[in-house]
Amino acid sequence: MIETREGYAPQKPETLAAYLSGIDTVRRILGGRPEQWSIAEVGDGNLNLVFIVKGPQGGVAVKQALPYVRLVGESWPLPLSRAHYEHTALTEQARLTGALVPKIHHYDETLALIVMELLEPHIIMRRGMIAATEYPRFAEDISTFLARTLYFTSDLALTADCKKALIGAFAGNTALCKITEDLIFTDPYRVAELNRWTSPQLDAYAARWREDGDLKVAVSRLKLKFLSSAEAMLHGDLHTGSVMLTKEDTRVIDPEFAFMGPMGFDVGAIVANVLINFFAQDGHEEQAGERDSYRDWVLSTLEQIMFRFRDKFVALWRESPTGDAYPASLFAGAEGEARLDIERQAYMDRLWADTVGFAAAKMIRRILGLAHNIDLEWIKDEDRRATCEARVLTLARDMMVNTARYPSISAVVDAARRVRQEMKHY
Amino acid sequence: MIETREGYAPQKPETLAAYLSGIDTVRRILGGRPEQWSIAEVGDGNLNLVFIVKGPQGGVAVKQALPYVRLVGESWPLPLSRAHYEHTALTEQARLTGALVPKIHHYDETLALIVMELLEPHIIMRRGMIAATEYPRFAEDISTFLARTLYFTSDLALTADCKKALIGAFAGNTALCKITEDLIFTDPYRVAELNRWTSPQLDAYAARWREDGDLKVAVSRLKLKFLSSAEAMLHGDLHTGSVMLTKEDTRVIDPEFAFMGPMGFDVGAIVANVLINFFAQDGHEEQAGERDSYRDWVLSTLEQIMFRFRDKFVALWRESPTGDAYPASLFAGAEGEARLDIERQAYMDRLWADTVGFAAAKMIRRILGLAHNIDLEWIKDEDRRATCEARVLTLARDMMVNTARYPSISAVVDAARRVRQEMKHY
Repeated sequence: MIETREGYAPQKPETLAAYLSGIDTVRRILGGRPEQWSIAEVGDGNLNLVFIVKGPQGGVAVKQALPYVRLVGESWPLPLSRAHYEHTALTEQARLTGALVPKIHHYDETLALIVMELLEPHIIMRRGMIAATEYPRFAEDISTFLARTLYFTSDLALTADCKKALIGAFAGNTALCKITEDLIFTDPYRVAELNRWTSPQLDAYAARWREDGDLKVAVSRLKLKFLSSAEAMLHGDLHTGSVMLTKEDTRVIDPEFAFMGPMGFDVGAIVANVLINFFAQDGHEEQAGERDSYRDWVLSTLEQIMFRFRDKFVALWRESPTGDAYPASLFAGAEGEARLDIERQAYMDRLWADTVGFAAAKMIRRILGLAHNIDLEWIKDEDRRATCEARVLTLARDMMVNTARYPSISAVVDAARRVRQEMKHY
Repeated sequence: MIETREGYAPQKPETLAAYLSGIDTVRRILGGRPEQWSIAEVGDGNLNLVFIVKGPQGGVAVKQALPYVRLVGESWPLPLSRAHYEHTALTEQARLTGALVPKIHHYDETLALIVMELLEPHIIMRRGMIAATEYPRFAEDISTFLARTLYFTSDLALTADCKKALIGAFAGNTALCKITEDLIFTDPYRVAELNRWTSPQLDAYAARWREDGDLKVAVSRLKLKFLSSAEAMLHGDLHTGSVMLTKEDTRVIDPEFAFMGPMGFDVGAIVANVLINFFAQDGHEEQAGERDSYRDWVLSTLEQIMFRFRDKFVALWRESPTGDAYPASLFAGAEGEARLDIERQAYMDRLWADTVGFAAAKMIRRILGLAHNIDLEWIKDEDRRATCEARVLTLARDMMVNTARYPSISAVVDAARRVRQEMKHY
């Protein structure tokens, strides 16, 4: 049995009702008496317990960390402290983005438990995209989320002491970072027990990936950046499974992987997961071409996200140059501002290059590593799936090794179309 | 009066004798009775009290932090915690380099006081170099110090959790980092009360530096790297005033600026201060050319330092690839090792480019900022001094803005000779 802190116990529907009835805010939201509340455990993620609680007046969602990885079991312990980091990040993201994250109603450090807003009728974005649902607000909202959370926790907005305090606040979230370090930056490039892929179709790819010196150097540079570049507070796991939305409202959830890291990692996560969905669409068509217009929406949304992110980030930098980096006093006057504006674009180009690399790493891990995406997993025909996956691998390898060939999101989008057209079979 | 912690009091020779007599280790080193001890305050640095204590049998040095900057006075408070960080770094450096730092005999957190080995007959290296003394061990020792302290505190040697623990351990040393951020990366490039330079001779330089957009962008990129790249534990103030030595023995002292930052900052500090000394020699000659051979020694020593640093760092990486970056499992076998060896050289090239930039920043701050070097300050003839200083500025600006023109230390050394030859007057 895994050791946990005193007072901790994993909740069940019965215990949870009694617990929640003792919290004023929550009782008022739910209404009625505890006996009238319905409680269902619905966690389909890899790590935690998630309960949906509904009362006569309203509902809440309850997320509780388990002392191990739910997907694997007690053989893979994982510290409860991740709830602390999730709460810290969620609080900061709420401050910076307002209603782009769920509202927190209650946090219990001992139980590693967060009671938050029940998002209804939101669904997990990945599921919506598999069903070819268009989300007209997503580009606008996710670009705002990225721009504001990254900008305002960076040295461009913060004084050095505040920035170092944030670094200190997240320095303990090592166990969650280690998952990323191993599963994204290491295992897909070596023989590892946890790796899996569509086999035998992709066996040759997996073998080639393990022998590819240029690729292993490139991913190791990205890993080094992940380990040593404390640029901003990252969500840390910003895929389309961490977004719940409707056509009118977007929320980012589950920031338990939060830490101070390189910005391109979060931006790249979005790029990677949207691209994976693009490549997966072929596997969900009953008739070839029936999802052409959805594919167009996916790629144009990706371009919109990156255009808007860049514009918003630069605009924040112009409006709120309150950080210790690029101090305003060095760039006073029209001439200084003009020179700084050129540098802002150069800064965004460097961030974009990081983004391309991190996106590629996140694409590859979803094909050759432990955790896969249902975008692809739900394609039943293994040959079709393997073809979609091989296209993801092919584009990703080139993005990672030949990053300079992708100077903009449009170059990535064009290459994605080209790879899909030209590569007929895995 | 500045507030300090309970139990803290700045020491005087009288109080210090009583204090030290209560510490067994120290009493044994000094021998005799406290009345027989001689105690002199000798601090000539900018920040702290330093006492030399001698007894019948031996001596110790005592360093105590003041709650303000000694150079300026109580109007510039500075936290006592810097003694804590100095002690932490010194302990780590001793573990990694053995006798290249002074031995710690005693540490008192409340008094912010460290009792350490008395280094005799060592002198401050900067003074030795002004007197044109050659130090045949210096290149070997300082390259070892740099290679071992930087390598073993980096992601190449440490697992991510140990690395993050180090980051956390130094995250609070913000006040000392802020001195660097302001005085090195900001003030010399703007109008700032604390700036000073040889005036009126260098007035035009100072004015040009404040208007130089390319230079201000370049120094801001370096500042951003200083703020956000937690590559390794830095000494943080590694100039020739932080080295005490004889011809046979080298010690690095005063790591109170220690924090987790970009490696090039420490390496660049050495490069900068050796170059400044090279350019200062003209000001100390009574007859033109009389220090030609010392100048040769200075520049060849600089080349030796960088060649050896590179070799030693790469050798450590080959011998002890124990860190989470560039995991050994990805580069197994002869082919993997060969590919990794190419990447090691590429890594060292990137580190070198950082070094060139940081060296340039450290050269400029010594001419246009608050804290100057006695290498130049001791040149009484202001025109001669200004000419030496203008050469430093000229080389440094080019190093910072056109870093790619300096692919190796030899390119820097050649340029230093050229600037000295060609630039006859400020």
